[in-house]
Amino acid sequence: MPSFSQKTFTLALITILFPLLLPAQNQSAQHPLDALKTQEYWTVYDVLRDSGKIDKDTVTHSVLLHEPAKDKVLAWKSGDPTFREAEVILLRKGTTIEALVDITGHKLESWKERKDVQAPVVVSEFRELDEAMKKDPRVIEALKKRGITDLNPITCFADPFGYFALPELEGHRIMIANCANTHGAYFSWSREIEGLQIRVDATEKKVLQVIDEGIIPVSQAPVNYQDLETAPRTGTTPIGITQPLGPSFQIKGSEVSWQNWRFRFRLDPRVGAIVNLAGIQAGDRFRSVLYEGSMSELYVPYMDPALNWANRVFIDAGEFYATGHVLKPLRPEIDCPSNSVYFDSLAWEEHGFPVIHSQVACLFESYSGDPAWRHFEEHQLSGSGARVLVLRTAAVIGNYDYVLDWRFERDGNLRVAVGATGIIETKAVKAKNASEGGGHGMAGAPDEFGHFVAENTVGVNHDHFFSYRLDVDRLVKRQLNNPLRKSIWVVEPSIAKTEKDAMMDIHLEKPAMWHFINPNVKGPLGYPTGYELMPGATAASLLDPDDGPQKVGAFSTHQLWVTPYKQDERFASGVYVTQSKGDDGLAGWTKANRPIENTDIVAWYTLGFHHVTRAEDWPVMPVMWHDFVLRPFDFFPQSPVITLPPAP
Amino acid sequence: MPSFSQKTFTLALITILFPLLLPAQNQSAQHPLDALKTQEYWTVYDVLRDSGKIDKDTVTHSVLLHEPAKDKVLAWKSGDPTFREAEVILLRKGTTIEALVDITGHKLESWKERKDVQAPVVVSEFRELDEAMKKDPRVIEALKKRGITDLNPITCFADPFGYFALPELEGHRIMIANCANTHGAYFSWSREIEGLQIRVDATEKKVLQVIDEGIIPVSQAPVNYQDLETAPRTGTTPIGITQPLGPSFQIKGSEVSWQNWRFRFRLDPRVGAIVNLAGIQAGDRFRSVLYEGSMSELYVPYMDPALNWANRVFIDAGEFYATGHVLKPLRPEIDCPSNSVYFDSLAWEEHGFPVIHSQVACLFESYSGDPAWRHFEEHQLSGSGARVLVLRTAAVIGNYDYVLDWRFERDGNLRVAVGATGIIETKAVKAKNASEGGGHGMAGAPDEFGHFVAENTVGVNHDHFFSYRLDVDRLVKRQLNNPLRKSIWVVEPSIAKTEKDAMMDIHLEKPAMWHFINPNVKGPLGYPTGYELMPGATAASLLDPDDGPQKVGAFSTHQLWVTPYKQDERFASGVYVTQSKGDDGLAGWTKANRPIENTDIVAWYTLGFHHVTRAEDWPVMPVMWHDFVLRPFDFFPQSPVITLPPAP
Repeated sequence: MPSFSQKTFTLALITILFPLLLPAQNQSAQHPLDALKTQEYWTVYDVLRDSGKIDKDTVTHSVLLHEPAKDKVLAWKSGDPTFREAEVILLRKGTTIEALVDITGHKLESWKERKDVQAPVVVSEFRELDEAMKKDPRVIEALKKRGITDLNPITCFADPFGYFALPELEGHRIMIANCANTHGAYFSWSREIEGLQIRVDATEKKVLQVIDEGIIPVSQAPVNYQDLETAPRTGTTPIGITQPLGPSFQIKGSEVSWQNWRFRFRLDPRVGAIVNLAGIQAGDRFRSVLYEGSMSELYVPYMDPALNWANRVFIDAGEFYATGHVLKPLRPEIDCPSNSVYFDSLAWEEHGFPVIHSQVACLFESYSGDPAWRHFEEHQLSGSGARVLVLRTAAVIGNYDYVLDWRFERDGNLRVAVGATGIIETKAVKAKNASEGGGHGMAGAPDEFGHFVAENTVGVNHDHFFSYRLDVDRLVKRQLNNPLRKSIWVVEPSIAKTEKDAMMDIHLEKPAMWHFINPNVKGPLGYPTGYELMPGATAASLLDPDDGPQKVGAFSTHQLWVTPYKQDERFASGVYVTQSKGDDGLAGWTKANRPIENTDIVAWYTLGFHHVTRAEDWPVMPVMWHDFVLRPFDFFPQSPVITLPPAP
Repeated sequence: MPSFSQKTFTLALITILFPLLLPAQNQSAQHPLDALKTQEYWTVYDVLRDSGKIDKDTVTHSVLLHEPAKDKVLAWKSGDPTFREAEVILLRKGTTIEALVDITGHKLESWKERKDVQAPVVVSEFRELDEAMKKDPRVIEALKKRGITDLNPITCFADPFGYFALPELEGHRIMIANCANTHGAYFSWSREIEGLQIRVDATEKKVLQVIDEGIIPVSQAPVNYQDLETAPRTGTTPIGITQPLGPSFQIKGSEVSWQNWRFRFRLDPRVGAIVNLAGIQAGDRFRSVLYEGSMSELYVPYMDPALNWANRVFIDAGEFYATGHVLKPLRPEIDCPSNSVYFDSLAWEEHGFPVIHSQVACLFESYSGDPAWRHFEEHQLSGSGARVLVLRTAAVIGNYDYVLDWRFERDGNLRVAVGATGIIETKAVKAKNASEGGGHGMAGAPDEFGHFVAENTVGVNHDHFFSYRLDVDRLVKRQLNNPLRKSIWVVEPSIAKTEKDAMMDIHLEKPAMWHFINPNVKGPLGYPTGYELMPGATAASLLDPDDGPQKVGAFSTHQLWVTPYKQDERFASGVYVTQSKGDDGLAGWTKANRPIENTDIVAWYTLGFHHVTRAEDWPVMPVMWHDFVLRPFDFFPQSPVITLPPAP
């Protein structure tokens, strides 16, 4: 990318260079919640190899830390032995195997062969299926009909699908593929061959069926943004964040201390950054806010009934994490400012070996120039500038990039933000544009299910739903309703007693505060200490609850769910999402309507948005941010920022 | 405020000092939309004095630029004479007078005496009524009963009220007052004397009635945050924004150019910053986004039926702007970062003389470390950092500070953000805290209508609603509904034909996009060019529509209103809000259900939130931000940030 760079100026601003990488993978685990370390992956590998249960057809699809039960973690003290386990998913000739490995004890704890679930997909499956498809005479013929005889630039990509579609597929590992012609482009996005679908058996590596609905030319929309001439706009002067004395956070192992915040985090290959034991240090006393918080699943259904589109209903984390790591590298200057510290992470490859993924998280202090508080009174001007600690990762699942932030604010707010960017999925159509196609979204028009973003290229309507798992330690939920009473509103505290009480939706005419309190700890004014979950702009799924995809993505039905803590309830759409029937996950668990009052509970927040694409989203969409906040509510005795000096 | 300052470090970061003030008040108006200049205020003064209609009892309550009709402004070219008018509100012995002064022609255009409206309140009324009340024997007696004989630290503050309350008050200028004991404090907030109400006639400057419901001790909650020892938290290192080559925006008169944005702004004493003629410069062509945008009204109803609380329903801008200026000074380092430029503003005093209000706006480029866009693809990492131009003011209306931002983003987004901070209004109660009072918001408890924030001190429940007037030039509104159809959603474009069609509320189960298009200008893909109004988290009023206060604050009923452009429809609750019956304003105008299709329309967005106070809001609440975005939708032919270099 030729670029008229401002780098010369930008570098000049930085007076102290921060350590760019903090590789801690080789050390042994210091804490029960640390990410799996290099030698631990090798121990898992050795235990499995030596078990006699592995053969050459056994492929490692997942190796994740099996998190200890919460009571064990809370009882653990520095210096205690760290009891470490890994949960492993293997696939052997179509059979999914769950293995639990005791790393500390170097032994296989359990081995379970399952016919009822599908392991997540791995990269070799994509590669092998691509080859198999391009060798199939029916595929070769269909491509030839389109004038394509050079198959080198053709990629046929088999998507797993996250819901159980057709009865005849039961028990088989089925994927639905389409091909793309990457000739002239750096990748296959927007270059897909519409009207041609290939159904494959991923176990047998064979083509089951080729559906050809006729020729639609591949989009030739100019997608190579990498080649665009870049230049700053006229008059642009360099800008930067400076912190000449270095960052003011401390990192010890996986623990971060900053201002009065303290938390741990690890980078999990399936759900990304997991924040643990986050809380406020008040003198000698540590006050817990969140035992654990992480994104737990991502659900992206597309809204086009056409061939190759009706099946695009992604349960992104659960389906695709095994292809490497849900997190991808961050680029300094673009993704994180110059005062950032970066972190590497480990995942596995298909033998189970550890693989380093570099620079997949950054930590930095941000100062955008905003006040933390202020008041003007006659001649008095008081206040303080705001600074924020940001833990940032980017989950990249194929075309989309999700910038995922945990933002620790000095007033006790913990803001979770999702910035969606990346490449939208487009469909080639015969009509050049909306005028030619009689378009504007009318029935039968080429943009009925989307919006032209380039010539012959329609960005297809879709949703994005993120389920955040928020283990608000030892708290119960209290919801504060504000119903109309005559003409004032009053707060009617009500305590959610069961899971169904706690399924909450946002209605402007019936506003509710979602308040998590510790009934056993009272603040100086007699109220239980607590935190509030404050939603930002969000969306609910419009899909029919009986639809296959919606059964798996059912967490998108409500904005808030609350469940009693269970060690193994970690993923909003369940452990195995590929070809799932939706029995595992939030909707399934809460059918029992378990009691949640005076229990250790977990809150699940759904952050979502409907995405109607626009010309501005092409070829890469500008970041669109959504967020929610965990906000102290009677947690502190008074404003925690009132004694900060003016400077941020 | 003794403070362990970081100033030494912070100053060291700044390599070039920016001009701190750009005083342009003394020049003559360069553009029809410029704020009134110093000599123009004097011309208005001279014209009125020389009219023979002014006597010693005539007090100037308001002098505002009378904005020319839009067609005149759009037809105006640089070098043309600027036709300038001022609209003046005077009060003479209870009679409100509207005068229109032709500044250019040095003549009085119209003079209208009105008995049906009340001029906004001015500072001298507060002062004179305070004196009158403290001389009234009934007030002296009531204070004596409370052990108060030294009246020096007592302030009795008469609040105008923004709705028509009692039939017997018709035609009179009535205010409701309570007193506070500021002994030991810097101001009267939280020091109010509950149970004692004084009704006054503001024309006669006399006490009508004293209601004494018995003694409730004044809160002694420690409110003097100014005296608190401040210190940075352990380990804090200095952080700052640097722009060593200076800002990259240009200012010519009232016009700002930055990147591809161009806009004008003026600082209006009633509604604050008014952004005009905002748009995108594309080569030689200027593409309008917003003819005019501003906050138009603020509505803050409290939710307590008690004496002195049922009447606290503020229509803040319209009621209080005449007491000086709705905007108050900003403090460098707290409110705006070091790379800011500041602006002064003019208002009038009670003779009509111009008064300078210093440093009430700042303009700066912000860089928080976020990406504008990014994509990772195999080995490629592309993207660009985000920088934002922020035009910031702070409206301070008594206890509350509202940080009001217009944020121009490089992707064409125009984000409007409101940060609420300042001092919450509290009520003294006999109970010390929630435990003692049997509290927790239960019926009859001392915190039934609020929440303890300090001992004997309850923060009272209330709402904040902001009406933003967005004159999206020459566009029509198209709303895109996404109803459920089987199990995908599709976009059903529908055009709002009348004002009632366009009253929109936010429902998650019936999502809508609010799309403003220019049907006559099509982009390259055949779609009309347009902008979308994208709401953030917001709230709707829960009050009974027939309630007096709600009639005046009726704009809070819907999140979106659309009206045909009318030169004089500028304030969402009408021109005269004091003792209003709610006939003027959005709810009144739209009763006619005028057509809005293919018309020049104005959009009105309501940004609101319910405020249940918490301990952390005491003594000054941390800033709580809300926002909405005007977002290009097929306005640009492709992503406007894709050709920017990586550095922000």
